[in-house]
Amino acid sequence: MTIAKKIETIIANASWIRRMFEEGAELKKMYGSENVYDFSLGNPNLPPPDKFKEVLLELVRSEPPDAHAYMPNTGYPGVCGAVAAFLAREQGAPVEGADVIMTCGAAGALNIALKALLDPGDEVLTPAPCFVEYGFYADNHGGVLKTVASRPDFQLDLAALAAAITPKTKVVLINSPNNPTGAVYGAASLKALGELLEAKSREIGRTIYLISDEPYRKVVYDGVSVPSIFTAYRESLIATSYSKDISIPGERIGFIAVNPGATHRKPLLGGMALANRILGFVNAPALMQRAVARLQGEKTDISAYLRKRDLLCDGLGAMGYDFVKPAGTFYLFPRSPIPDDVEFVQTLKAERVLVVPGSGFKGPGHFRIAFCVDDAVIKNAMPGFERAIRKYRK
Amino acid sequence: MTIAKKIETIIANASWIRRMFEEGAELKKMYGSENVYDFSLGNPNLPPPDKFKEVLLELVRSEPPDAHAYMPNTGYPGVCGAVAAFLAREQGAPVEGADVIMTCGAAGALNIALKALLDPGDEVLTPAPCFVEYGFYADNHGGVLKTVASRPDFQLDLAALAAAITPKTKVVLINSPNNPTGAVYGAASLKALGELLEAKSREIGRTIYLISDEPYRKVVYDGVSVPSIFTAYRESLIATSYSKDISIPGERIGFIAVNPGATHRKPLLGGMALANRILGFVNAPALMQRAVARLQGEKTDISAYLRKRDLLCDGLGAMGYDFVKPAGTFYLFPRSPIPDDVEFVQTLKAERVLVVPGSGFKGPGHFRIAFCVDDAVIKNAMPGFERAIRKYRK
Repeated sequence: MTIAKKIETIIANASWIRRMFEEGAELKKMYGSENVYDFSLGNPNLPPPDKFKEVLLELVRSEPPDAHAYMPNTGYPGVCGAVAAFLAREQGAPVEGADVIMTCGAAGALNIALKALLDPGDEVLTPAPCFVEYGFYADNHGGVLKTVASRPDFQLDLAALAAAITPKTKVVLINSPNNPTGAVYGAASLKALGELLEAKSREIGRTIYLISDEPYRKVVYDGVSVPSIFTAYRESLIATSYSKDISIPGERIGFIAVNPGATHRKPLLGGMALANRILGFVNAPALMQRAVARLQGEKTDISAYLRKRDLLCDGLGAMGYDFVKPAGTFYLFPRSPIPDDVEFVQTLKAERVLVVPGSGFKGPGHFRIAFCVDDAVIKNAMPGFERAIRKYRK
Repeated sequence: MTIAKKIETIIANASWIRRMFEEGAELKKMYGSENVYDFSLGNPNLPPPDKFKEVLLELVRSEPPDAHAYMPNTGYPGVCGAVAAFLAREQGAPVEGADVIMTCGAAGALNIALKALLDPGDEVLTPAPCFVEYGFYADNHGGVLKTVASRPDFQLDLAALAAAITPKTKVVLINSPNNPTGAVYGAASLKALGELLEAKSREIGRTIYLISDEPYRKVVYDGVSVPSIFTAYRESLIATSYSKDISIPGERIGFIAVNPGATHRKPLLGGMALANRILGFVNAPALMQRAVARLQGEKTDISAYLRKRDLLCDGLGAMGYDFVKPAGTFYLFPRSPIPDDVEFVQTLKAERVLVVPGSGFKGPGHFRIAFCVDDAVIKNAMPGFERAIRKYRK
């Protein structure tokens, strides 16, 4: 054994997913990438808003000599302040710059939060289906991810969450709008969750933190809005990024914010600043920090994702696919026409349609379609989607 | 206890260093920052080369719509290729793009390497004095840092290293040019280290990896050059960044490269790509990747650091300070005139001269002066340095 056993095991277990990607790449080589309909990756296909480029050029043209130097591990105070001012309005809470730590994306945000919070064996509870990386993030810092099935409509199952909380539960991690389901939790549901966590914290004699991972907050449709987590529960943190709403996932820029009303606000912020440093992030990329400070509230053209969602939902609905229409994100998570979602994904692949099995998101019996692709990909994939379901439902 | 015990302990133990920084900030408020001589931070004070700004502007002006999208976790293949081409010449080894993973600085590089390599309890051996963060990096991934004293001239003590290797040793981590001493290890020394590790690997029946952390490689003086690690030892990795040579530490851009001759090259690269993803780095910042690809071999005006080094060494030497003149980096690591380096650092602080005790680098009895500051700071600090040593040596 030459590399770490755990890493070797992860690589071995992930090999069928990797094989799928490799086979997908092979398909593209064989048939031309325009003849393969790739819905496998959540890589936003819309360009950033025009203002992003303008801001970048302006920042670089007028930069002082120390524009790329170290700054505090938490980020430029001015940037944290700009983020806090926007967040305060959005959350309806008196968030200050000191409550915000700029991070290398939401993934960096979640890792520093879990590093700062978890003692060995502590549990992180999350509703399933969920983002596959959560399990790694908890494990990175000695914790254990436990999942709790959501309701069939992908909304929170509070009774199931309540039953799953143990004295080892340190964090409840939610993701709304949700990857992979597109579900958005309503205000009443979050309020009830907050009350549950308050009662359970009292019961187990220690604070259960609620971390809301919300990079898709601005990618919502039909007038839906994502409720404030800070007003729903006091002991809460928001982890997010500008990857999806400004379409800059490659730049790794996001933040974590602590509820200004949190009981242990200061040690929590100090712990996360330290974690940002010692995990090797050190600080969020300097230029992108200064860019997003000037782009608060900006977003890419969400109406294009709405059009894609409706194109996809109308098409698949007419064929008899069963799904909950996503209120946000650019993911659709239909039920697989057969129980074995991996088999169905292979059937779609035979039609040159690439999607990800729900099992990869702890949501077996489903599959994920990332519709952040050109409209033409959606349109051209329709016959393949139709032939695949016809194979099982005549 | 509301945050992780380990994090709480680190914060508590680090509090005197933090207190020093806070007291330093207070000093600046009281006396004006121009009257406080701050040598505490390794934050390069020279601006990036002019070409950096030109390249950034050109990249942003001409960017395609997907310029800020996700790319492979290892980085843009073209960027890895450009880095590899330069590295191949520098190292005299057939490095290819596939041997390189772009990272969030050298800190990110070291963390993904240790995550990929360490099983619980594995030991990372490093010569002391050393960069204080190494201990955290090893611990992040279940490993343990062991230090071995260097020779009084800060060169490798191979006999001591040999004696410290146990069956648990998985990694030997070196840093040349060294922070905090400025020492550069010579070719003969590295060759002997390579032979030692080869023999010891055979002896303990598993590969000991040599990781060379070399962000100061281009910051060297007096015609010194940093020898190739890839020709010195087959099972080796290079972790580095563009933070110091191009003066862009805030941007978090660097890479890790595996010796193309390494026995387990592929699993090692696969493990580090996975680690880059699951630790939450995901990928190195996109725009900065593309920038550094065009800046291979560029560096800031090192002659300015040389001038600062000589100004400092001439001044302190004349006062009777005892030190080894640094062959590289922008650090000087003099012997403290009294055994208690923390006390001497306090004495300097009373003179409004801020430095870091050697104890912080596992080099007690010394202190670190980061001379990446304006020449005026060095000149104006001289009377304070003189009064401090006079206090103990009349």
